[in-house]
Amino acid sequence: MHAEQMAEEFPVVGLDTAALEAVRLLASRRLPGLIVVGQDGCPHSVLPASQVVRFLVPSYVQDDPSLARVMDEPFADQAAGKLTGATVRQLLPSEPVELPAVNHDDTVVEVAAIMARLRCPLVAVMRDKTILGAITASRLLELVTSES
Amino acid sequence: MHAEQMAEEFPVVGLDTAALEAVRLLASRRLPGLIVVGQDGCPHSVLPASQVVRFLVPSYVQDDPSLARVMDEPFADQAAGKLTGATVRQLLPSEPVELPAVNHDDTVVEVAAIMARLRCPLVAVMRDKTILGAITASRLLELVTSES
Repeated sequence: MHAEQMAEEFPVVGLDTAALEAVRLLASRRLPGLIVVGQDGCPHSVLPASQVVRFLVPSYVQDDPSLARVMDEPFADQAAGKLTGATVRQLLPSEPVELPAVNHDDTVVEVAAIMARLRCPLVAVMRDKTILGAITASRLLELVTSES
Repeated sequence: MHAEQMAEEFPVVGLDTAALEAVRLLASRRLPGLIVVGQDGCPHSVLPASQVVRFLVPSYVQDDPSLARVMDEPFADQAAGKLTGATVRQLLPSEPVELPAVNHDDTVVEVAAIMARLRCPLVAVMRDKTILGAITASRLLELVTSES
């Protein structure tokens, strides 16, 4: 089996996608992250859901979570305010989370080797410069354990 | 809203749970990780799916993924061999991934603050020493954006 057959559809957003749209994708599909592509369509990075939470929480509350109790505006309103007009580019961490890519004809064990080496839970499957889909670590475990 | 209402059921395994059972849970429910509890039932750590992949890939292949092509035994057979008889304890990384805990009466913003501070995608919700469930970052985003 090759990476192409292992790949599954995975939501992709661009650097200029509206932040609210990205958050709705994460929330409605309960994803741990989204694939972010650059203007050329090639993988740029991963936007982890936890990073979006980080974007929404004021830094003084991150530094001292007990201050959460004294926030003067409801959190949902604050969050909506921060997301409105923002793009995915602004949600990304200053050091983007790299998204490894595998080739469409890589084998199961080659994909596993790359995941293991980079300790990453997600890889993009590429044919030339096109993303065919993604393989999560749990998808790979499914394939490995169902083959035996 | 409090953490108790935000919490969802999440699979929990023990340190002595059979590795194969843990892998089947990860694979069948397509989870990025499992909660691991100690013998007292309190959260011990998180077992990420990518860590299990790491456990399955021989270290010489991790060091040089091109060697994947010369493995003499099918990967699924190797994986089954490694998992049989192993327990969750052996799957865990040498430095376990900490699972933060929140109290059942913590508010949405307190949970968000802890996730943001620790950059973690998952927290356990506790009442005294019992796990009531877990909150993922995407679940939290769902609650924050649906309230507004």
